[in-house]
Amino acid sequence: MSNPYAYAKANQNRFLEEYQDLLRIRTISTQPQHAADVARAAEWLKAMMLRIGMKRAEVILMPEGRCPLVLGEWDGAGPDAPTVLIYCHYDVQPAEVADGWDSEPFEPTIKDGRLYCRGAVDSKLHVMANLKAVESWLAAADAPKVNIKVVLEGEEESGSENINAFIAAHPERLAADIAMISDGAILAPDQPSLTYGLRGIAALELHVSAPISDLHSGHWGGSVHNPIQALCEIIEQLHDENGTVSVPGFYDDVAAVTAQDRALLEQVAPYLQAEWDDVVAAPAVWGEAEYNLPERLGARPTLEINGIQGGYTGAGMKTVLPAGAFAKITCRLVPRQDPARVLQCVMDHIHNIAPETVTVDIRPSEPGAEAVLLDVEGRAMAAAAQAYTHAWGVEPVYERSGGSVPICVECAKVAGAVVIMSYGLKSGRAHGPNENIYLQNFAKGIQATIKFIDVLGEGRG
Amino acid sequence: MSNPYAYAKANQNRFLEEYQDLLRIRTISTQPQHAADVARAAEWLKAMMLRIGMKRAEVILMPEGRCPLVLGEWDGAGPDAPTVLIYCHYDVQPAEVADGWDSEPFEPTIKDGRLYCRGAVDSKLHVMANLKAVESWLAAADAPKVNIKVVLEGEEESGSENINAFIAAHPERLAADIAMISDGAILAPDQPSLTYGLRGIAALELHVSAPISDLHSGHWGGSVHNPIQALCEIIEQLHDENGTVSVPGFYDDVAAVTAQDRALLEQVAPYLQAEWDDVVAAPAVWGEAEYNLPERLGARPTLEINGIQGGYTGAGMKTVLPAGAFAKITCRLVPRQDPARVLQCVMDHIHNIAPETVTVDIRPSEPGAEAVLLDVEGRAMAAAAQAYTHAWGVEPVYERSGGSVPICVECAKVAGAVVIMSYGLKSGRAHGPNENIYLQNFAKGIQATIKFIDVLGEGRG
Repeated sequence: MSNPYAYAKANQNRFLEEYQDLLRIRTISTQPQHAADVARAAEWLKAMMLRIGMKRAEVILMPEGRCPLVLGEWDGAGPDAPTVLIYCHYDVQPAEVADGWDSEPFEPTIKDGRLYCRGAVDSKLHVMANLKAVESWLAAADAPKVNIKVVLEGEEESGSENINAFIAAHPERLAADIAMISDGAILAPDQPSLTYGLRGIAALELHVSAPISDLHSGHWGGSVHNPIQALCEIIEQLHDENGTVSVPGFYDDVAAVTAQDRALLEQVAPYLQAEWDDVVAAPAVWGEAEYNLPERLGARPTLEINGIQGGYTGAGMKTVLPAGAFAKITCRLVPRQDPARVLQCVMDHIHNIAPETVTVDIRPSEPGAEAVLLDVEGRAMAAAAQAYTHAWGVEPVYERSGGSVPICVECAKVAGAVVIMSYGLKSGRAHGPNENIYLQNFAKGIQATIKFIDVLGEGRG
Repeated sequence: MSNPYAYAKANQNRFLEEYQDLLRIRTISTQPQHAADVARAAEWLKAMMLRIGMKRAEVILMPEGRCPLVLGEWDGAGPDAPTVLIYCHYDVQPAEVADGWDSEPFEPTIKDGRLYCRGAVDSKLHVMANLKAVESWLAAADAPKVNIKVVLEGEEESGSENINAFIAAHPERLAADIAMISDGAILAPDQPSLTYGLRGIAALELHVSAPISDLHSGHWGGSVHNPIQALCEIIEQLHDENGTVSVPGFYDDVAAVTAQDRALLEQVAPYLQAEWDDVVAAPAVWGEAEYNLPERLGARPTLEINGIQGGYTGAGMKTVLPAGAFAKITCRLVPRQDPARVLQCVMDHIHNIAPETVTVDIRPSEPGAEAVLLDVEGRAMAAAAQAYTHAWGVEPVYERSGGSVPICVECAKVAGAVVIMSYGLKSGRAHGPNENIYLQNFAKGIQATIKFIDVLGEGRG
């Protein structure tokens, strides 16, 4: 074979078989009974790295039996060539037929151009598309003009406890000029998208108490500020009627939505609205009236109640006036917001508005994460855009994701630039039953990564 | 023995032994593994009724293995004499040393003039004080001039599912001129009290939902009205800053606190405040400023949040934006309020204030219970007051309890008048660890019931 693009097309059926072989391994990192499956997958991936021509491959065991990393490296482009680091994760969420699957969740099932399996989109799609792109390059007549590192995480779905520490302890192992985080989803089957921003996060728990123990609500109701009610009164004062966060200082450092942002995100709006109608489907869209949907989701910070609990919530009636109640709160942050400062503003506000009839205890969660804003005009993003355009025949649109991807922050510490490349679809039901991909996305993803490596090496060698 | 008062005093030690024998039986009605203990206690009580001279005694088995009633009757005063019905319950709450007991919870332990045991106050105290009063009468030279019925319930602590149906099906079995509900507690060791009012109850569940399923709070936060937040906003609008319920129509039928109420309840205030400081001990008293503590607790209706639940409340952080959240709400009602009408007012208000960005589903609980207001100036209450004055040497004060005692409503259907007589203390830790009574309260209770029967028979025979 003379070029990687043709090699990939010629071997597409075999690639699809190998992708399905990996899908069959139950790499559920949250369930200890699948530790052997995870270990087997790690060895399977290491063997594949060596078989496709990577010079080194290693399974890095993690403390206390946690799921291993798999590292592979090809440095044939020489010490003067740039290095690209490709990150994916090979572990998956749990899945059982009883959750609502129409087929066995760990048996790949192809139907109407789609492949259904746990991990099909999140994220064995990315693991295999990237490894098969590397294979295609290493099997081609001309070697790639960039060095390649691949890191495959085994505990992304169970907290990523160890990878950050590994990166901090061994920065040279993952050092690169460009890090490609390959996870997530594009907007539509025929519309690739590039994420250039991710929100950060800050979290706290808010505990409200009043009586020293649970009381009989008949005996004492009317004489004590019910902690559930007081908690609700506090929460009600965290937003105004416009959906804007009412915490003084909350928006002080928020980077304004620029004209460039607005122009880019305008293109995403119809896709996001369609997805909202499908996935959210609430009675009405809610939020800050002066921002459109992609801006609310990607460029504006939020304060969200993730959980609330107090009193009796079982079947029937129990007339308790509880001693306390609590809520879990997270703030999604945008660039320039410092998680610690935002937490302080929220805590100060709650202490200011808390009534004197109750006791408030606020427990911040450490350490939070800053938002990420990638350089839309940088070389890595330009290469990613060319890669998508080559594979899809359509230029990508640019979006800012509302979520947080901490590995981006970590990789930014060891890489000159970071780019996020996703080949799944938002409608692919990651984490849910009947997770699936369009088969064509697997083939297009391989072509896109081949092109990405190609563009990064242009003008060299 | 010529009179019942002397008989009781002479036999006090034996009475105390028998009381302790009953306390040792683990009559935990909520735990199926104690069904045999409950059955044994029922037979023990039936045997005692016959031994002390009641003419008939019967254990009434309940459907599906639920805990039996024990009925006893003495009709020796003849068909023209009035009949008093004495109600108590012999089942108890669960108890284990691990809950914080300083002694074995089912082994009576006497220390410093107190007797510690599960059921000591709630309510084997009342079962035994009343049976021993009946024994004292039936052993005396002169027979009582009222007929006596005793009904002992075995599932008061597990929902009282069957007694109401039994009363409805066999009204003649419990028919009486005066029903004496013997349960609960007086204000202080040296201050007896008579409860002349009980609040009613109406209950509902409030469910708020918005997205069709749980969402990632990063991906969608800022674009959908978080159901927890919306629920809090609704709950916040159920009271004003004064602690007054904000539901239109809620107070429409509320009977005003009369000058007589105010004069009676004024005497209770210092006792209740001391108990509040001990039992509630919140940072500050809360509630309707224009009413004092006993009025807030006994004469004013309330709307209380008994439970709230939504999203993730386990350890750590889970960035979910939940599909829904719910709260359990009960209203305590005062005389003239109709439970169904109050529920309708609350439901109408919630529907009026619910934002259009969420879906609200209100599920009322059937059927609620009306408040009870007993006749302070009636013959039964006067007899009870004389009974307390005789036994304690102090006239009782009058209070209105914030709780609801549904058996009062049921007994009112088969009895000409109802009175509530309590011999326990509010500080006796009913339902908690180290439940206890002052031993003297057992002796005084026996004397009070003897006197009550005496007064009811005055002017007869």
